[in-house]
This record gives sequence, structure tokens and C-alpha cells, in this order.
Amino acid sequence: MQTQNPNFRRKVEEIFERAAFIETLGIRLRGVGVGWCETRLDVLPRHLQQDGYIHAGVQATMADHTAGGAAGSLIREDEIVLSVEFKINLLRPAQGEAMRCKANVLKAGRMLIVVESELFSLDGAQEKLTAKATVTLAVKSK
Amino acid sequence: MQTQNPNFRRKVEEIFERAAFIETLGIRLRGVGVGWCETRLDVLPRHLQQDGYIHAGVQATMADHTAGGAAGSLIREDEIVLSVEFKINLLRPAQGEAMRCKANVLKAGRMLIVVESELFSLDGAQEKLTAKATVTLAVKSK
Amino acid sequence: MQTQNPNFRRKVEEIFERAAFIETLGIRLRGVGVGWCETRLDVLPRHLQQDGYIHAGVQATMADHTAGGAAGSLIREDEIVLSVEFKINLLRPAQGEAMRCKANVLKAGRMLIVVESELFSLDGAQEKLTAKATVTLAVKSK
Amino acid sequence: MQTQNPNFRRKVEEIFERAAFIETLGIRLRGVGVGWCETRLDVLPRHLQQDGYIHAGVQATMADHTAGGAAGSLIREDEIVLSVEFKINLLRPAQGEAMRCKANVLKAGRMLIVVESELFSLDGAQEKLTAKATVTLAVKSK
Repeated sequence: MQTQNPNFRRKVEEIFERAAFIETLGIRLRGVGVGWCETRLDVLPRHLQQDGYIHAGVQATMADHTAGGAAGSLIREDEIVLSVEFKINLLRPAQGEAMRCKANVLKAGRMLIVVESELFSLDGAQEKLTAKATVTLAVKSK
Repeated sequence: MQTQNPNFRRKVEEIFERAAFIETLGIRLRGVGVGWCETRLDVLPRHLQQDGYIHAGVQATMADHTAGGAAGSLIREDEIVLSVEFKINLLRPAQGEAMRCKANVLKAGRMLIVVESELFSLDGAQEKLTAKATVTLAVKSK
Repeated sequence: MQTQNPNFRRKVEEIFERAAFIETLGIRLRGVGVGWCETRLDVLPRHLQQDGYIHAGVQATMADHTAGGAAGSLIREDEIVLSVEFKINLLRPAQGEAMRCKANVLKAGRMLIVVESELFSLDGAQEKLTAKATVTLAVKSK
Repeated sequence: MQTQNPNFRRKVEEIFERAAFIETLGIRLRGVGVGWCETRLDVLPRHLQQDGYIHAGVQATMADHTAGGAAGSLIREDEIVLSVEFKINLLRPAQGEAMRCKANVLKAGRMLIVVESELFSLDGAQEKLTAKATVTLAVKSK
């Protein structure tokens, strides 16, 4: 896998810094490379749903945005990525003090990039896969 | 379509009142009936992504939770619904002052309920379909 | 919704006539218009899975190809459509003497077309929704 | 991962032998273990779509049924699995003399099993990932 942008790290950092919703939620960029991205969220009461689990929407947001970071590492400086569709399987109710998301590009085309995002809950020393998503993103000129 | 709960309105209201993430986002319940649910969100700067559009995660959260409301209208008082998986197509970049979501149950089984959620952006007098999701929920005992 | 091809009917007919897999299965084009397509399959023993139901793969094939017909009604003569991804919910086990599929374009973009396909089983006078799919297709130059 | 059936190999073989649609297509079981299944298809002209590629429906069928084999390796003798929904990303047009599918269980619950299926086209010595699917299956009593 190859990137079209030698400054891809800076570009991906901006995808996180300039996204107000991601700032509001508290999702932080933890690592990025060519074709992958990793994020973390410290879980707070405001991230929960009615039965005390981490809301599926929190997990979907994290999966989608981290996928955007992974795809964003490949494109040209004058391009952006936009999510076209995604699918997420919520494998078990998510609980714990933090969430980690790792996104890997599965296929990078000229117009479409397909990324897989895995979500893990962190509870003490234990890490569990809570959800997995497949995200299709379109590459657009700025 | 039939409900197992004569007090289903109260139950669905609780699905919204007790979900901290939904309160935090500002998603409000606007209507509910047997097998359907409708919500609204006044769009604020904190809902946006890096290019000024409403974040896919906001739309996914709204689609998922409104689907939960629609499914929640059918189940017994001592049951809950949990999202098993969902898929969302983001049909166009979403912009505007508000979002509306309408969720309709497509198939209600004993263990699984399938719901479709349509998301509309409201910009002045204009309403546009921005996304459509299909959500599978499991029915569980409390 | 508008077509880019005054001879779209002929184009969609060819999408069916020239697809060997569709001929082999016995899926027949029954109607086509701008942005929609309808097909039918007479169910035979060879379409079944191990428990006597119509195989999910038969339904997925019908959903995908009928979506291709609906998308194909919109594009230019020198373009083709290719499925990028699809999602299908199998709402109940499918049984009966025939299947009917109706596909409607949900959103037609320049590069991507999103189509919904509904599948019905026909058993005597009774028609039941057995599956629903959402298909994303890419528009390509021939 | 653990199986509920010491004779799981025989059970999975039957999932293939008794499925007429799979026999008709020519999809053959090549290997099975606890939580995984592998299949192969020799590509024939009747598997193609209108532009000479292997039909998405062929790939979807293979992904779905091989996932059924992987899930089937875990359940009790008196249970069956039924696909609830699946999503497939067609990463590139598929061509070649054969297809290979490998399915791995991602999460095995009491009622629902989630499986990932990867599809590869074989063209001479070259193997390419052409599609990836995520399949949700329900466990039912016979």
C-alpha cells in the first residue's frame, strides 16, 4: 500500500483536530501509518445508552472516523474522503473504562477506499472485541 | 403489527430519557406509534465533521436510536432491545439547521426485529433524504 | 429521476440476456422503467438449500442483478454498472413456487447509484416479503 | 472457540451435500475445523455476468454458504443455522479459473453467530482477494 502524500501524518491529524463532533466526544488520535489509524476514547457517563452500555452510536462514530483517518493517510493533499456507507456488527454489549479502535485499509481504489475498523473495550487489564465495521469511503477533490 | 405493551409510549420515552448519549447530542423524541418512531435534532457546530458536514456518526446514532425506539414500541415491559448490527448509506453530504429521522419496523420476530431508518436534513423549507439505515435488534429479557 | 439513455429498455434487456449466471438460474426480466426494474424466478428444487428453503444466495443474486437493471436504466449507452457492495436482510425463511423482486433507485449520483431491492415469495395467492437488500453500484465507462 | 458437536465434520459435510443450489453451482467443501470452513469453485462460463466477470451472486452465495459451514461446525447436532443478514464488499471485478472462500467465526453467541468470509480469485499462480463478507446467522432448533 502506498500513500499519495508525504505529509499524510499532518493531514490525518487535521481530520481529527478539525472535526468538532470528534473533539466533543473525546475521541483521540493515537497512531497513524500508511493505510492504518488508531484511536482511543476514555468512556464517560455521557457515552452510555439507557441500559448502561456504551452507545452503539459512539462505537459507530469511532469506527467511521478512524476509518476516515486510515483512508486519509493514502490520498493526495488536495483530496478529501467522505463515508459512502458502513456496516457495523455489535458483537457484545460494550462496557469498560475506555475504547480502542484500529482501522486498516482493505482495498484502496482510485475512487473508493474500503476500510475495516475493529473496536475493543478496555476494562482493567482486559481487552475485548466489541464491534467490527466495514466502511466504504469516496475520494473527492477538495 | 401488534405491541406486547399497552404502555409502550412510556417505555419508548424512557429509552430516550435514560440514554445519556442521546441527551448529550440533543436528539429529541417527536413521535411514536406501534412499530414506528420519529426524532429531531437541532444541528449545532459540535455535530459537524472536518469539512463542515453533519458527521456520519451523528446520523448513525440518530438512525440507530430511533430504530431502537420503533422496536421498543413492540416488546413486553420486561424486555429490552439491543442493536445487533446496522448498515447505513450516506446518500449525500448532510447540511442544514436540523435533522429528522423516521424509523419503521420492517419485520418483527420473537427474537429479532428489523427496522429501517430514514434521515432527512432540514434547510429552510427544504427537506432532503441524506441517509438510510437498516438496523437489526435483538429482544432480550431485562 | 432521469435517464441518460433513450434506449434504456434495450440496454437493461441486454444486462439480463448476456448474463449467463442469470440465465442458468432462470431469473427473468419482467418490467423496467426509469429507475426501477422487476424480475421473476420460478422456484425449482435446484434453488434450495439443505433445509428445503430457497437459498440465500439465490435471493442475493436476484436482489443484486435486479438492482443492476434498475441502475442500468439511468446510465449512458457507453457506461456499465458494477456492484460495489450490498447488504441483504433475510427476514423469514423463503418458500413457495416463485420469487418476485422489485428494485428501486434510492439515489443516483454521477459515480455511485444506490438501489433498494425487495424480494417476495409467491405461494398460491399469497405474497410475502422474504428479504430486502441495499445495493451500491459504481458507474464505469465501457 | 468450542464446538457443541463431536461429529461436526459430518454435520458440515451434510450442509454441503444436501444443498441442491450449492451442488448445482459446483461449490465444493475443501476443509472444515472448529469455527472455520473453506470451499472452492471451478469457474465456468455459466458463473459469469454480462461483462465477463464472475457474478456477484456467485460470490455472495459462496460467502454465505461457507459462513454457514463455519457456523455449523459449532452448533449441536439437533440445531441448524439460518442466515439472518449479510453484507458483502466486492473489492475488484473477479476473474480467473477458480474461486476460493475461507470463512472464520468472529463471534459465537448462543443465538447468533457472526462469520467473516474472504473470497479469492485464482488465476494461474496468482491469488487475489476479490470480496469480503460479514454474515450473521441464527441458531435454531431443528
